[in-house]
Amino acid sequence: MTGTGKVYLIGAGPGDVDLMTMRAMRMLGEADAVVYDRLVSPEILQLAPATAQMVPVGKAPKCHTVPQGRINEILAELARDGLTVARLKGGDPLIFGRGSEEAAYLMDRGIAVDYAPGITAAQGMSAGTGVPLTHRGLATGVRYVTGHRAADKRLDLDWKSLASEETTLVVYMGVANIAEIALRLMGEGMPATLPVMAISNATTPRETRLVSRLDRIGVEIAEVPLRAPVLFVIGHVVSLYRERAVAETLPEAAVMVGE
Amino acid sequence: MTGTGKVYLIGAGPGDVDLMTMRAMRMLGEADAVVYDRLVSPEILQLAPATAQMVPVGKAPKCHTVPQGRINEILAELARDGLTVARLKGGDPLIFGRGSEEAAYLMDRGIAVDYAPGITAAQGMSAGTGVPLTHRGLATGVRYVTGHRAADKRLDLDWKSLASEETTLVVYMGVANIAEIALRLMGEGMPATLPVMAISNATTPRETRLVSRLDRIGVEIAEVPLRAPVLFVIGHVVSLYRERAVAETLPEAAVMVGE
Repeated sequence: MTGTGKVYLIGAGPGDVDLMTMRAMRMLGEADAVVYDRLVSPEILQLAPATAQMVPVGKAPKCHTVPQGRINEILAELARDGLTVARLKGGDPLIFGRGSEEAAYLMDRGIAVDYAPGITAAQGMSAGTGVPLTHRGLATGVRYVTGHRAADKRLDLDWKSLASEETTLVVYMGVANIAEIALRLMGEGMPATLPVMAISNATTPRETRLVSRLDRIGVEIAEVPLRAPVLFVIGHVVSLYRERAVAETLPEAAVMVGE
Repeated sequence: MTGTGKVYLIGAGPGDVDLMTMRAMRMLGEADAVVYDRLVSPEILQLAPATAQMVPVGKAPKCHTVPQGRINEILAELARDGLTVARLKGGDPLIFGRGSEEAAYLMDRGIAVDYAPGITAAQGMSAGTGVPLTHRGLATGVRYVTGHRAADKRLDLDWKSLASEETTLVVYMGVANIAEIALRLMGEGMPATLPVMAISNATTPRETRLVSRLDRIGVEIAEVPLRAPVLFVIGHVVSLYRERAVAETLPEAAVMVGE
């Protein structure tokens, strides 16, 4: 059976099963094979059909992972075997997920591709904490960037453009570089007191939060290392954080407020 | 029965029922009353329990709508009557949804609030067209802004910061001002040939698309007026648009390619 398979590029969302879309659930339920990144939560992997072949492909900084080229080949091989392949990614497959690279590779080889978008970690953080991504008078827009660069490269972000106090800045994969990011933003005129929230494993039972500010986040993140994946939310919207939601969902010890 | 109600702030997503989260579906199913914006699709409104009280509150530019203050009061009144209230918003309630204003009003009055995040229209566009929001070599990040301002105000965006070719720029509510937006971005150095996609009613059976470029979008959008809500995606990622997905989901006449 050749050429009859297909690949679903599925956004698993931030971690909580409840935040997956109906389409993502349905596609995952149809899977003969599940190819997944390290950041997909165990709770979601458990939803795969018991008969599905499970193929981990890593994708964590500094860990041994399957190179992107090989991931592309694995997806194509499984689809050519006639399988329905669920390619599961944290968040949304078309935001920092390299989903479009995989899709291009597959479509160029005549393999059918379909997508399920996913709630981003930033949106999961927002719904879980009540901190909005935009808010009248505090943020007129929101921006997602990555704070990670390959080991041999400098952190090459457009600092002038990023230093916009009216925009909520969400930094993915920024733990290693958050001290530098904060310094550069202050260098471009962002206030030292600008609130910052770091959130680890948002929406999962392992979630932890750190509320700080631009001039302190670099030191504080080093003192209380958070487990990957960690998201940083930088902007005045963080001032709206209330601990309301905390008591309901988190053990006391998991919450660290820096101020 | 007083003080026992609660309000769910629910992201209905871009329009397709299939793109709602499991949590959003569950919360909507529990509703005694549904308070909804004009941009929530009829397909989603049909999912409300048959017994639920349906309360439209408008929220469309230039239409008679319920003022925000009155919406807040309606939500509080229904909750105080002991009802479980589903506050349905297009997209995500905490991105351009004023969800955080409603939540603050309710929490200040001791009314319990919970959230269901929603897939944004930008993500819906992305999954439906295959145009990613980020892509190696084309866009290192993504940014959401609104292109709408009150009638008596100027369009007050930080043009220097917005003119970043490496960032996919998504403009919500920008139909009336897209010609000015395009001009200002070119004035800050963005190339005239930068691809732009306009998408109306993304992910619904009423979806239409217009693929253009920065120097033409202002004229072309006037020639083929698209029905609200319209989203603009500005950036090199739009060059990855293939018409693959089109044949499957759209009537021929609904697709207009400007180039």
